[in-house]
This record gives sequence, structure tokens and C-alpha cells, in this order.
Amino acid sequence: MKYPEVHALTFDIFGTVVDWRGSVVEEAERLGQSHGIDANWESFADAWRAGYGPAMDRVRRGELPWTSLDGLHRLILSGLREDYHLTDVSEREIGNLNRVWHRLKPWPDVPNALPRLRERYLVATLSNGNMALLVNLSKNAGLSWDCILSAELARHYKPDPEVYQTAADMLDLAPEEIMMVASHQFDLQAAQAAGFKTAFVPRPELIDSVGAEHEEAGAVYDIVVDDFVELAERLGT
Amino acid sequence: MKYPEVHALTFDIFGTVVDWRGSVVEEAERLGQSHGIDANWESFADAWRAGYGPAMDRVRRGELPWTSLDGLHRLILSGLREDYHLTDVSEREIGNLNRVWHRLKPWPDVPNALPRLRERYLVATLSNGNMALLVNLSKNAGLSWDCILSAELARHYKPDPEVYQTAADMLDLAPEEIMMVASHQFDLQAAQAAGFKTAFVPRPELIDSVGAEHEEAGAVYDIVVDDFVELAERLGT
Repeated sequence: MKYPEVHALTFDIFGTVVDWRGSVVEEAERLGQSHGIDANWESFADAWRAGYGPAMDRVRRGELPWTSLDGLHRLILSGLREDYHLTDVSEREIGNLNRVWHRLKPWPDVPNALPRLRERYLVATLSNGNMALLVNLSKNAGLSWDCILSAELARHYKPDPEVYQTAADMLDLAPEEIMMVASHQFDLQAAQAAGFKTAFVPRPELIDSVGAEHEEAGAVYDIVVDDFVELAERLGT
Repeated sequence: MKYPEVHALTFDIFGTVVDWRGSVVEEAERLGQSHGIDANWESFADAWRAGYGPAMDRVRRGELPWTSLDGLHRLILSGLREDYHLTDVSEREIGNLNRVWHRLKPWPDVPNALPRLRERYLVATLSNGNMALLVNLSKNAGLSWDCILSAELARHYKPDPEVYQTAADMLDLAPEEIMMVASHQFDLQAAQAAGFKTAFVPRPELIDSVGAEHEEAGAVYDIVVDDFVELAERLGT
């Protein structure tokens, strides 16, 4: 084990642990088929996710009061209904579609590697997803954590520093005793600024599919690995 | 299953899930022996626990700012050092003794019954212990929850109604979709007032040992059982 001071690992969820895009496309496609709606559901999934940053910014600027990610997802979804021909779908079905984020599927390397990491480390989520979303997502995916931690507990969204500091406070650990694991460099850089150790898992499958540039490790992270199995090996578990 | 509307079970911890008294007596005895201190460690454990209600009341009255249970335990312990001949014990050892609450042992029926309950229900802690205490206690005891919930998230101590309401908010469930499981009637009655279903597990072993009267089920609870195995049976898991 090369990081003897690290006691806990905190995991970003969307993109890092679960393949949000594949799961959202699949459920939207199914809903579309049941209503005979012909739309580009890949584009729908990307548009939904693209609304997430601007929606969090509205909370940061105080234009919206604190709103859970479930609430933000619903706001963004409402704005997409016309473009994707979802105006005649019932509110109940839209509410159910909004909860697709509670049913996202993990990347294939996650289910076996996470228990290995948990043998030696305290493992926790640290996501912008609200607590209920993270609890339900984990239960649906069969993922067990020592603790669910969410941006909701800080009432700030990542990468605001309050999120990382609140996580350290809740675990009663010094920031350097915690390693943030994420596929997004903005998240790792904010964690690093808060004093956390960092592990970068790029997940190029997702990045390529959304047409973004492959994220090169532009900053210096403690660990850069291809998946959670390699992470477990690097951490000696 | 007789409670089809119940989706989550929230568990009190001290006394209900773990035998706080046996664990505290054992560690205090060991510390005493290593220092040649002769004291009544049963009385010490009871005095430490007896300070807990008054300390929470000081927080409630605003005489103390919000203080985690680890912090309150340490305050109470400081007040007991003279009576129990602990004044010459180092601060490091006192700090370690204070963390005995992170190492409490579960009642024997808990480790096998909890996974059964977790198959059908979302299971969460709901304790006055702070998040770090509950995470460490669970990891040390080998207990897995879907979610760690603590009074710390509400910055109120049970039985204040904010604790139960915050738990329901965090799980995004209506109060009646949650069943509180506890060995203390004050906790169940407050949960009931907040709209929760209730399961009473009296744990007379603990009550008898602290000399309190056996808690008869004075109010009407949804379920009264002897242990978690019986609870799992009653809930059809």
C-alpha cells in the first residue's frame, strides 16, 4: 500500500461508477416506443445531462433556492418535453422517467472491485446526486458503501469547496486522509485544492460517446488507472 | 408482509443494535488494569451514559453550540476523570477511550438478521451518534446499512422532531413509509408523532443491568418483538 495515510475513498458517481448515458438512453427509448414517439434518444440523454451544469449555476447564483438534483433533473426534463415530443406523456410517466437516475447501471468493473476496496478502506459516495438518489441507485445496482455522502449535506454542488470539507467533517478525517476517485478532472482538481488525495479513472467510453475530447491527465494526480480493478491493485487490496 | 406501505427501516443504535454497556465496561476495565487503577467500571459506564441526556439538553437550551456526540462524550468523560482516578492517564489514552463508542459490539441477534431485513427494506441508522461514530461503529462491527443517517444531519438530537423529519427528507419518503426500530420508548413515541411506523425491541438485558424499570410497551406500537430475528420474521423477510 503506497498511501498509508489514506483512510477513506470517496467516489464520484455519474460517469465514474455508473454509465449514466447508456441507462438514460435505454429507458427513454423504451418510453418512446411505448408511446410511438420517434426521437433521437442519444441526443435527448445528452441534452438532459447538458442542462445540469447551467442548472447548478442557477442555484450557485441564488436564482434558485437550494434544489436537490432530482429537482434540477425534473426542471431540465420539463424544458426538453416539447423538443422530444414528450408533451402528451403523463406526469406520472415523466416522474418515473426522472427517476431513471436512481436506476443507473454500474460500469462492469465496479461490482467486484468495490468490495475489495472496502476491505481495507472506508468507502463512501461523494456525488452531486441527492441522498435519496444515491441510496436508491446503490440499492438498485447492488453496490454497498460504508457511507452515502452527498453534496446535499453541504447544500452546495461540486466543485464548491464546501462539499469536500463537509465530507471530511462528516467522516472526522483530515482531507489528506481521503482520496477522491473520479472520472472528471474538475472534481479531482477541486478535491486536491481541498487537500484530498486523488485517483483519476478517465472512462473514455463515456467521454467519446458524448463527443467531448478525451480528458488527458492535465494535472498531477496521485493515481491514474483504467478501472476499479486496477485501482484496487494499485492500492494493494 | 403486513406493512406493505413501509419502504425503509430506521434503527436506533445505542442499546437497540449494540450493547453499549458491556463494551464500555470492558474497555474501561482494560485501561484501568494497565494503569493499576481500581474503580467500579460498571458504575463508570453508567455515569458516562447518564451524562448524555443532560449534555444534549445543554445543546437544546443553547448553552452549548451544536456539538457532536463525540464532543459531548468527551465533555462528560472529562467530568468523570477525578472520581474514577483517570487524572494521570494521558490525553491520548483518554481520547482513545472516548472512541470506545466507535467500537461497540452488536447484540448477538443483529449480524445475521440485518442482511435479511436489508433484502426487502432500505435499512438505515437513525441515531444521536455523529456520522463518523456511526460509520466507524458499523465498519468495526461488520454491519452494512443502505445509508447512515444521524441526528447530526438535522443538528438536533432525538427526540426532537427535526431528526425524524430530516431522515424522511433525506430518503425522500413520506413518514408513514418508514418504520423506526428502537429499544427506547421516548424515541418510538417521537417517531410516531412524526408519522413513522414503530417497532419496539425492549432489550431487557440492558435495562435490567442499569437498574431501570423494564420498559413495558406503554403506547401502541405497530410491532413489539424480542429481537431482530423475530422482527425479520414478523416483516416476512
